[in-house]
Amino acid sequence: MDDNDLVKIERITGYARETTDDTVTRELPLTIVLNNQELVTLLCSPADLKNLAVGYLSSEGLLNSRDDITKISLDESKGIVRVDIAEDKLTVGDTVFKRVLTSGCSRGTSFYSFIDMKEQVKVESQLKISAPAVFSLVGEFQRRSEMFKTTGGVHNAALCDTEDILIFSNDISRHNAIDKIFGDCILNDVSIKDRIVVTSGRISSEILIKIARRQIPFLISRSAPTNLSVRLADQVGMTLIGFVREQRMNIYTNGWRVLSANG
Amino acid sequence: MDDNDLVKIERITGYARETTDDTVTRELPLTIVLNNQELVTLLCSPADLKNLAVGYLSSEGLLNSRDDITKISLDESKGIVRVDIAEDKLTVGDTVFKRVLTSGCSRGTSFYSFIDMKEQVKVESQLKISAPAVFSLVGEFQRRSEMFKTTGGVHNAALCDTEDILIFSNDISRHNAIDKIFGDCILNDVSIKDRIVVTSGRISSEILIKIARRQIPFLISRSAPTNLSVRLADQVGMTLIGFVREQRMNIYTNGWRVLSANG
Repeated sequence: MDDNDLVKIERITGYARETTDDTVTRELPLTIVLNNQELVTLLCSPADLKNLAVGYLSSEGLLNSRDDITKISLDESKGIVRVDIAEDKLTVGDTVFKRVLTSGCSRGTSFYSFIDMKEQVKVESQLKISAPAVFSLVGEFQRRSEMFKTTGGVHNAALCDTEDILIFSNDISRHNAIDKIFGDCILNDVSIKDRIVVTSGRISSEILIKIARRQIPFLISRSAPTNLSVRLADQVGMTLIGFVREQRMNIYTNGWRVLSANG
Repeated sequence: MDDNDLVKIERITGYARETTDDTVTRELPLTIVLNNQELVTLLCSPADLKNLAVGYLSSEGLLNSRDDITKISLDESKGIVRVDIAEDKLTVGDTVFKRVLTSGCSRGTSFYSFIDMKEQVKVESQLKISAPAVFSLVGEFQRRSEMFKTTGGVHNAALCDTEDILIFSNDISRHNAIDKIFGDCILNDVSIKDRIVVTSGRISSEILIKIARRQIPFLISRSAPTNLSVRLADQVGMTLIGFVREQRMNIYTNGWRVLSANG
């Protein structure tokens, strides 16, 4: 399904006014039905919808691996993805549906439970990357992002090793773009050990928590982090890098994982 | 409370690496307690927290006017705002708490109920504005936004008449920035009739719905709309303008409300 729609607009430029065609990014309501119960509706971009559903379920702690999934089917025209998980893998039984609607808000419940468990999450990875390799990765990320730039207003995310982009996603939501990556990892058996996540969007605590829970050592953004994400990254031992532009970057936490260009 | 925090960072510029101080935007978890029951926790910027709480409740359909509020108190250090609403104004009784957690997700429930009611919402306002006045408003909006630009990653929103900005807000969340405006209107008796909303952020269907529900005829953004927001704006009779930069703008719907510079 195409990511863009053609619409008729009026464009005003100074004193001139003309009617013309323009592209706008598509926004799709996707309902996730888990074991025949409607779980949540996400507003998203139309690409990689199975990845999104699986990544979302994984972010919410509802599945861990492809083996948990007994069936997955997508009805693109209706905007419904059905995921069946083996009953013995459904961690919280019937109450799951109430619980997830709450934390599906990404507004509090997940957050506080994370604050509580911050002593337990510790990112141990000894992965290191050189500063030029960071610039190179983000440069490539930026080139790929430009391909989606015709309409504006779309976020990108990528899973990388120290040399290459392994998975690249785009979505109108920063959160969905990251969930799509992890869904892809689960459905296609891509390891997330010793990886790097790059995102176009700003880093709020919710985004940081999504990455920290997966024990990923690097979160890199072209944009700004909040003070809360800096504090959490520090506490769990993640390396948080922001404002990567051309040959500049800000390292907010755990700079020992970034090797200087001159050794 | 200051909107920014000072953090110690390492900045890499080409081959140079230095330790320096930098500012990051603050992110605060704000819990709204409605009639002694915990309703939701929003992650937000620390300014105008009462406005945010009241605007959020209003957006969720839980209060309509200042008279509905019997008490409001803010404990800034704990991040808690307590709002009491007269029991006879609580529209949905005890079930409200379940209901709001769902639609608080801003992920579906509100959306679908809106789609259902789209035949009922009709923005009737005959307000018109000239193209130069739009450029002037957005120029002023942009100048004010620059004041918050030291850290990056913050959104702004404004309520305007055809000549001036009446209320201006900022927040890490596009949604919160708009809720803060409407909270201010309710707490300070500012009429929203025949107004214009300007936002720095992209316009998804959820943002459009927030404005449409208040029967506001104009939504203007410096950024992009989605196809769904264009369709909804068309259906309810709102004028949707995007990509306003210098002397350019795109009018997506109901251009009859925008008068050309040359009459």
